[in-house]
Amino acid sequence: MYISSKKTSMQQSLFPHLQHLIGLTNEEFDIFLGCLQSQKLKRREVLIAEGDICRYAYFIKKGCLRYFHNVDGEEITGQFFFENGWYTDYESFLLQKPSKQNIDALEPTELILLPKSELLNLYITIPKFEKFGRIMAENAFLGLRNRTELLTQQSAEERYLRLMKERPKVIERVPQHYIASYLGIKPPSLSRIRKRIMNNT
Amino acid sequence: MYISSKKTSMQQSLFPHLQHLIGLTNEEFDIFLGCLQSQKLKRREVLIAEGDICRYAYFIKKGCLRYFHNVDGEEITGQFFFENGWYTDYESFLLQKPSKQNIDALEPTELILLPKSELLNLYITIPKFEKFGRIMAENAFLGLRNRTELLTQQSAEERYLRLMKERPKVIERVPQHYIASYLGIKPPSLSRIRKRIMNNT
Repeated sequence: MYISSKKTSMQQSLFPHLQHLIGLTNEEFDIFLGCLQSQKLKRREVLIAEGDICRYAYFIKKGCLRYFHNVDGEEITGQFFFENGWYTDYESFLLQKPSKQNIDALEPTELILLPKSELLNLYITIPKFEKFGRIMAENAFLGLRNRTELLTQQSAEERYLRLMKERPKVIERVPQHYIASYLGIKPPSLSRIRKRIMNNT
Repeated sequence: MYISSKKTSMQQSLFPHLQHLIGLTNEEFDIFLGCLQSQKLKRREVLIAEGDICRYAYFIKKGCLRYFHNVDGEEITGQFFFENGWYTDYESFLLQKPSKQNIDALEPTELILLPKSELLNLYITIPKFEKFGRIMAENAFLGLRNRTELLTQQSAEERYLRLMKERPKVIERVPQHYIASYLGIKPPSLSRIRKRIMNNT
């Protein structure tokens, strides 16, 4: 009974997503389901700590993950990830090297885990998963490129406006001090920027 | 005769590379060869200028490419690419958006061009190319991650020592002022670092 309820719940979240991405048959999807695990996190619970090796790709069924670095005792927030998207510490996942990041949950979060070892098997048994791997890698590249550009080529106000436009979920669901850290500014600067934008609209 | 000499020359450079990567049959390799074009660049000739859309993945048969940004009239060197490796402006290539980079040749360079449109067809006609696309994307991610880390987390001397260890070709073949720019320092600082290292060995 556990298996079938696990299957139903995972099917609801993942099947449309993978169907759209790589067009799996029911039989292939069943093989894929057999590879998965699940995990729940409480708010502020840590998923990966600096030094851990990331052995999974995580599909976020519900909730929100954040990654951050510790620099001189201060948390520098790097990115946010929401439901219906994948997250992995891609460098650690690919090279099986200790992670340089920390990941925690900003909300109660439910994850579906795809172990790296299973993904490597899927590349062989169901070659369609190569496309899945390619799209995951392309998105990881574009996400990192976007992040680097955001921090190096725009003013703090431009960064905030871009975030509002491209990722409204971050503005709606993430506490202000994490958004400030993500934008590379102090919380009082973010308050001033928000006030200025509200007065101009 | 042209076709067969083109084939022989491309076979020599590319066949072992692709054989190792995705194990193509002779017939599949022939289809792949039919997708390719070639291009030669003189030293300092520009391959892609800021604003161009990058429509190819380039296999470097011979020579060296460099990418750079123009910031306030100054060229900031971003990366170097050598023979037997692939280069593409991956963001522009994936999204077909204008490039933010400039690419030129630091040596007389010979390129084999794989058009994006052909690669998209290959993903469908020879699904093994999905693996090729995945590995290309994974390497692009790791290269960008490495580059970001090099600039943000190490001292200039540590960066130079890492470059010496990991990419001796850059030290051997690239003019000093491009290496200085790549490391984010001025040429006199690079001279001082080099002198210090030579005195210590």
